[in-house]
Amino acid sequence: MDGKQTITLTITCPDTVGIVAAVSGFLSEHDAFITEAAQYGDPFSKRFFMRCVFIPGALCPPKGELEKRFSMIAQRFQMIWHMYDAADKPRVVVLVSKFGHCLNDLLHRYHTGSLPVEIPAIISNHPDMQSQVEWNKIPFHYLPVDKTDKTRQERALIALLDDLEPDLVVLARYMQILSPELCARLSGHCINIHHSFLPSFKGAKPYHQAHSRGVKLIGATAHYVTTDLDEGPIIDQAVERVDHTHTPDDLVAMGRDIENLVLSRAVRYHIEHRVLMNGAKTVVFK
Amino acid sequence: MDGKQTITLTITCPDTVGIVAAVSGFLSEHDAFITEAAQYGDPFSKRFFMRCVFIPGALCPPKGELEKRFSMIAQRFQMIWHMYDAADKPRVVVLVSKFGHCLNDLLHRYHTGSLPVEIPAIISNHPDMQSQVEWNKIPFHYLPVDKTDKTRQERALIALLDDLEPDLVVLARYMQILSPELCARLSGHCINIHHSFLPSFKGAKPYHQAHSRGVKLIGATAHYVTTDLDEGPIIDQAVERVDHTHTPDDLVAMGRDIENLVLSRAVRYHIEHRVLMNGAKTVVFK
Amino acid sequence: MDGKQTITLTITCPDTVGIVAAVSGFLSEHDAFITEAAQYGDPFSKRFFMRCVFIPGALCPPKGELEKRFSMIAQRFQMIWHMYDAADKPRVVVLVSKFGHCLNDLLHRYHTGSLPVEIPAIISNHPDMQSQVEWNKIPFHYLPVDKTDKTRQERALIALLDDLEPDLVVLARYMQILSPELCARLSGHCINIHHSFLPSFKGAKPYHQAHSRGVKLIGATAHYVTTDLDEGPIIDQAVERVDHTHTPDDLVAMGRDIENLVLSRAVRYHIEHRVLMNGAKTVVFK
Amino acid sequence: MDGKQTITLTITCPDTVGIVAAVSGFLSEHDAFITEAAQYGDPFSKRFFMRCVFIPGALCPPKGELEKRFSMIAQRFQMIWHMYDAADKPRVVVLVSKFGHCLNDLLHRYHTGSLPVEIPAIISNHPDMQSQVEWNKIPFHYLPVDKTDKTRQERALIALLDDLEPDLVVLARYMQILSPELCARLSGHCINIHHSFLPSFKGAKPYHQAHSRGVKLIGATAHYVTTDLDEGPIIDQAVERVDHTHTPDDLVAMGRDIENLVLSRAVRYHIEHRVLMNGAKTVVFK
Repeated sequence: MDGKQTITLTITCPDTVGIVAAVSGFLSEHDAFITEAAQYGDPFSKRFFMRCVFIPGALCPPKGELEKRFSMIAQRFQMIWHMYDAADKPRVVVLVSKFGHCLNDLLHRYHTGSLPVEIPAIISNHPDMQSQVEWNKIPFHYLPVDKTDKTRQERALIALLDDLEPDLVVLARYMQILSPELCARLSGHCINIHHSFLPSFKGAKPYHQAHSRGVKLIGATAHYVTTDLDEGPIIDQAVERVDHTHTPDDLVAMGRDIENLVLSRAVRYHIEHRVLMNGAKTVVFK
Repeated sequence: MDGKQTITLTITCPDTVGIVAAVSGFLSEHDAFITEAAQYGDPFSKRFFMRCVFIPGALCPPKGELEKRFSMIAQRFQMIWHMYDAADKPRVVVLVSKFGHCLNDLLHRYHTGSLPVEIPAIISNHPDMQSQVEWNKIPFHYLPVDKTDKTRQERALIALLDDLEPDLVVLARYMQILSPELCARLSGHCINIHHSFLPSFKGAKPYHQAHSRGVKLIGATAHYVTTDLDEGPIIDQAVERVDHTHTPDDLVAMGRDIENLVLSRAVRYHIEHRVLMNGAKTVVFK
Repeated sequence: MDGKQTITLTITCPDTVGIVAAVSGFLSEHDAFITEAAQYGDPFSKRFFMRCVFIPGALCPPKGELEKRFSMIAQRFQMIWHMYDAADKPRVVVLVSKFGHCLNDLLHRYHTGSLPVEIPAIISNHPDMQSQVEWNKIPFHYLPVDKTDKTRQERALIALLDDLEPDLVVLARYMQILSPELCARLSGHCINIHHSFLPSFKGAKPYHQAHSRGVKLIGATAHYVTTDLDEGPIIDQAVERVDHTHTPDDLVAMGRDIENLVLSRAVRYHIEHRVLMNGAKTVVFK
Repeated sequence: MDGKQTITLTITCPDTVGIVAAVSGFLSEHDAFITEAAQYGDPFSKRFFMRCVFIPGALCPPKGELEKRFSMIAQRFQMIWHMYDAADKPRVVVLVSKFGHCLNDLLHRYHTGSLPVEIPAIISNHPDMQSQVEWNKIPFHYLPVDKTDKTRQERALIALLDDLEPDLVVLARYMQILSPELCARLSGHCINIHHSFLPSFKGAKPYHQAHSRGVKLIGATAHYVTTDLDEGPIIDQAVERVDHTHTPDDLVAMGRDIENLVLSRAVRYHIEHRVLMNGAKTVVFK
């Protein structure tokens, strides 16, 4: 981005005449050059969604002042809105259990700069990933689950998250179910990868379910976590062709590649503020 | 095929040592040149599946005699088996309601010779397709449904099928549910196209269900019809990427292209004897 | 579209601050409700592209008056621009030779209303498609090529096109090369389907070229026709997986399905005014 | 594999009657249970290809003796053939330059056991990957290129390969061109990943070439290295959809995921002995 400041504006509001005119007029008047813009009016929910990336020109006031002025327009249209400076890297905490492929994939993207985030911590209920995480110079927190009292581990997890203040929590094949309270608290800020093409094969061992049913494509789904298991708003999905020769183990192995792709795309969409919530669904401005 | 006779042999039997040796030895001894062969042993069901295409050489006896001799081997291995002469075109009856895209697609393939079948009849509970079917010089049977007694229409349908003796019945968006009796009778010889990526979105209006759930891919599934609605063995599936801007009507329109592809592939696999049943699943030798 | 008038506005101009503000401000002031909008600023060519669909409200003047007023803004930003009323169906002329799959596909979409165009004529250098075209109640023009003087046929073709005044000419596997003069004349209004994944395998018999090279995917490309054969701006492409068992004839057969899909999508994008030219490339607002 | 010995037999020979019978008869007589088998007769080259995986039973002689006996059959049919014991892990040497994504992907598969190979060394003309390689407990060899005499580095490379005796050399984005001598020497045992959908965009900066041409899909190709740059037999390819908004840098980033998938698949096919050479093409028994 050539060292220039870049700001992303996201807006959700009831749909009506004049929103784009008001927003783009405001930006134009404040010498902001739009480099990307996308909008969508949902004819069903009658909600309007907008994402706009702009470079403030010489005459543009600082972000704080710009936000103050914009709030007038926002109020008029009852907007839920945010301005994000691209220089403020989102803080992403990753939770993982024993399967490390999604974590490895995210760490490689982080390590090479292709995923521009800060990772203040990686948390696991197993110690297996510690060495790899520490090689990446990221603090690793081992929070084992006490089977006689699972809530203890979650309390420790919540305390840690309180401390870390992440913008996004990623469940990278984290095999513990979050309590409804934690789900609610992380609402819209917690992405899970489910290893099936939802809504098919919810719950445990989806690749084994897929094998039993004899499907000809398997998939993976990245979605926001809600209190309904595997029912949250879907961000991205992908599939791969399989055939009768594939055992459940083969599906597991092939699925890992799909999970990597889908989860990393969903995380990227999220941190680039491309995902807006539309009830139980998402608007994704790619 | 250069005018040469081509025979396809399909085999299903319990898996054990020596099946391929016995079959290929038999063919070699009878001067048959194998042009295609595929086999699969299912480690779960312990069943063995084989498909073999061969050209009888000068010293090979006629098909009837070959079958008689092969039955000795078949008995030894408890085979379910068939030999099909490629010159005997399968008789395919197509059932359709008001949506004609799958029918149009199949008819074009039939008309241009790319689907080498005979179509002795097309049957519909609506008159809409009559003109197009007759342009293709195929008899059209209009069997309207009497809403006060649906069984009447099915009795007429069964009588017609008894007459036509089809090798395959294709439900090309036929919007009537077949009775359990008819399903059982057509078992393994009746292919339906369901307009979703099964097992997601069974039953009515799957594209509307997909829209509500906010999935990022929609699909279609061709499967053998069984008494459990949309639960039969899957032959082929495909998907297409969608996003938040697509209305249910858009999904319906995009879905038509997927349905065409998937159904025509499934029909081709079936008539080329590439599909073998493995319990509630299929083995498809592509 | 609920009987409401719908207007599509397309814009191409040098990129600068304030374009979206000016356009959306203009529409808002004229009581136009935007239902779809997309814009793109190319950082390389420094050109700006916009497509906007709106429903004129009660206070909006008629289209002619709206265009007159908009021309002031257009002039300021040096816009190339158009307003299209969705009620004015584009006139599409299809050229075809002996392979009828793309024509059949387009005709089915036309016939069922999913491709909202007028087809004033279908033109061919072979008589093969006449019956099917006429069944669709479309005039068929047979313009055979005189091998001793190919220019004669093209002169007849040009005269016919002069008469028909099409908005779009579709080469649906039309196997004659257009002269540079005709290419220039149809520039931006003539779509060809090439049966390879361009820029691989230009020219004749691309599936045979693909077979020789042993590629693992084959494809098709829809592009605007230019004087450089198979070098025009690409509108859409798709591929399908193949393997060593596929003969050139198999590739031809599989390719037909890809060609149908790609060509029909490209035609739809074009008639919905989603395609804007950006030098030798296209901007496609899906 | 349950601790049972598993042997893979590959065969290439002129096509004729009786090959499968002879091979499967031999295996059956020697109490070998076939778990996977695939064969293909190329109607163009008239060559026959076969891959067969079997478990030796109690009465089967040791592999050395089995090979001795099989050589009689092999001679009769002029076979090029090999028997591989699955317990003998292939030795794979990876060459890499500055882009580490393919290496990271292969290392993760190696580390988690999903790629059952030995990696005796990783070689690079840059030091960047040293730390990551050594974290995986694999020797790292830094062979910098002397720009005044590039042959020096290659001589060192050849000496090292002589020492390491790899079964396979993988060029995981290794940005040096191998000499014709080295290419010839590694013939059939050296896989390169090219970051385009070959034969499109050979040579340097393929993603920039793709951006200039305005293609709507980008791809990657894994192929055996030959003396003709980017012309070797293709093992696998894949593509991803792109659009006008993607810059060359975006294509590079998206391409990395395709390269990872395609290269890892090609390596897996190779080490599982699924790839047989058919002139300038490959037969891949998936």
